[in-house]
Amino acid sequence: MSPTKITSKEQVSQLLQNYDTFIFDCDGVIWLGDHAIPGAVESIELLTSLNKQVIFVTNNSTKSRKAYTKKFEKFGLKVSKEQIFGSAYASATYLHQFIKLPLDKKVWVMGESGIEEELKELGYTSIGGTDARLDEKFDANTTPFLPKDSSVGAVITGLDTKVNYHRLAITLQYLQDPNVEFLATNIDSTFPQKGLILPGAGSIIESVAYSSGRESIACGKPNQNMLDAIVADKGLDRSRAIMVGDRLNTDIKFGNDGGLGTLLVLTGIETEDNVLKTGAPKFYADSLGVIGELYK
Amino acid sequence: MSPTKITSKEQVSQLLQNYDTFIFDCDGVIWLGDHAIPGAVESIELLTSLNKQVIFVTNNSTKSRKAYTKKFEKFGLKVSKEQIFGSAYASATYLHQFIKLPLDKKVWVMGESGIEEELKELGYTSIGGTDARLDEKFDANTTPFLPKDSSVGAVITGLDTKVNYHRLAITLQYLQDPNVEFLATNIDSTFPQKGLILPGAGSIIESVAYSSGRESIACGKPNQNMLDAIVADKGLDRSRAIMVGDRLNTDIKFGNDGGLGTLLVLTGIETEDNVLKTGAPKFYADSLGVIGELYK
Repeated sequence: MSPTKITSKEQVSQLLQNYDTFIFDCDGVIWLGDHAIPGAVESIELLTSLNKQVIFVTNNSTKSRKAYTKKFEKFGLKVSKEQIFGSAYASATYLHQFIKLPLDKKVWVMGESGIEEELKELGYTSIGGTDARLDEKFDANTTPFLPKDSSVGAVITGLDTKVNYHRLAITLQYLQDPNVEFLATNIDSTFPQKGLILPGAGSIIESVAYSSGRESIACGKPNQNMLDAIVADKGLDRSRAIMVGDRLNTDIKFGNDGGLGTLLVLTGIETEDNVLKTGAPKFYADSLGVIGELYK
Repeated sequence: MSPTKITSKEQVSQLLQNYDTFIFDCDGVIWLGDHAIPGAVESIELLTSLNKQVIFVTNNSTKSRKAYTKKFEKFGLKVSKEQIFGSAYASATYLHQFIKLPLDKKVWVMGESGIEEELKELGYTSIGGTDARLDEKFDANTTPFLPKDSSVGAVITGLDTKVNYHRLAITLQYLQDPNVEFLATNIDSTFPQKGLILPGAGSIIESVAYSSGRESIACGKPNQNMLDAIVADKGLDRSRAIMVGDRLNTDIKFGNDGGLGTLLVLTGIETEDNVLKTGAPKFYADSLGVIGELYK
């Protein structure tokens, strides 16, 4: 069935009748980097005022859920930590709940502070990550990160704008031990920022996957571990929930694989051509803003 | 046929009767980083004294051929630029001879000075590479490398120990244009240094290959473009030439694919178990040093 474009008040009313829970991707849907997408906040406020359940899912691992609530505040949205499911949180909980890594094992992080903070909340000690000593040029003889810490039981990798040879080299040393678990927050190849397409978490992770010859366990969208956790946590009825996102290969796949409704917005990375060619989402719209505008 | 281990004077004599040209990989064969492999220089001097043709092939793109001659000098070997085929040179000549990129087109480099120097020798202007402004934190608004230089016609990527998000992000901008050629010096996933296995050129290239969704043209071993160029340049008889290296998936593949004899030395990355399991090389030896020692 061809995706339906949302262009009328009747379609919006139908959408509101069909779904009780709206799960939102953030970047490319609500904001683009530091800029709010016009009308997006108003649309979310409308849903809240209509007693819809609103949940935010993001593959951005650079911020913890706590830090994310502040980002929402900046755009005038009051959101609790419990409404947010980030890929850093998803990775840390996967390590804890599924892999059951003991809390006395350390985690080597190649990624930003979001991962470190979520690990800390669960009681894990992380090393590497944002440690400034990793910003120095790599030298096998002088790096304070060798020899390896034998208590490391897992590596979590994610987007890291401080990626350098030092981080890649030490991460590889840990991955050479097959007993050390290899988790990835998400495998997005790129993300949009300020009109550019920039390298995403997946392109950082791919580097160490290639050097180590290993495949990571990806914890973000479209991996269903994340959705299973949300459904269990919130007691969702999947048939009454819809995933709203800007990417076919993560957001829409995530929703479709999980048996949710899907709505793609064209404010992020996809074009209308692509949407129609793949036929993947159930609905699509120029922007999240149209929900609020058309409802008026 | 199972690989033959060189352990006797008779086997060495046979080897010297069967081959007129010895093509050597360098790192892991003649030296390991800055340390000479015991007896390797003496073995090469023996071959030269017996009027054997000696050629050096390296996937190391961080040095130009000219810079490489100085590395040989440090180990007491007098080698001319014409005896050396490096992957930086191979990439630059591939661009010139096969792709026929006009000399007024620029080349964006993500890699070290070897690539820049070889491009310059052929008359190309390179940008990016070792430019110190790329060492700064990436900011889309302030980077001096945006907007893109529209005269760039190709990207050459190689091992880059100064890799960072700035370099990855700008390289991706060029690769987003399908008219810009995408060359890789080589795709080695790792290389040995000071007892460690470190990320190789391939693991840097894989990052931008993944973010751009493109595949690179690899110019180093085991790609046959490099061997074809050597054969044409030196007028080699392939049946009388042998490739000596430390890696099954590059050196030995390179020799086997090209119809050369092959000799693997165990001073680099491979284990004897691996050699026997794959059965890939014709001969193998504990070290290049055994040639000179057994010949005495």
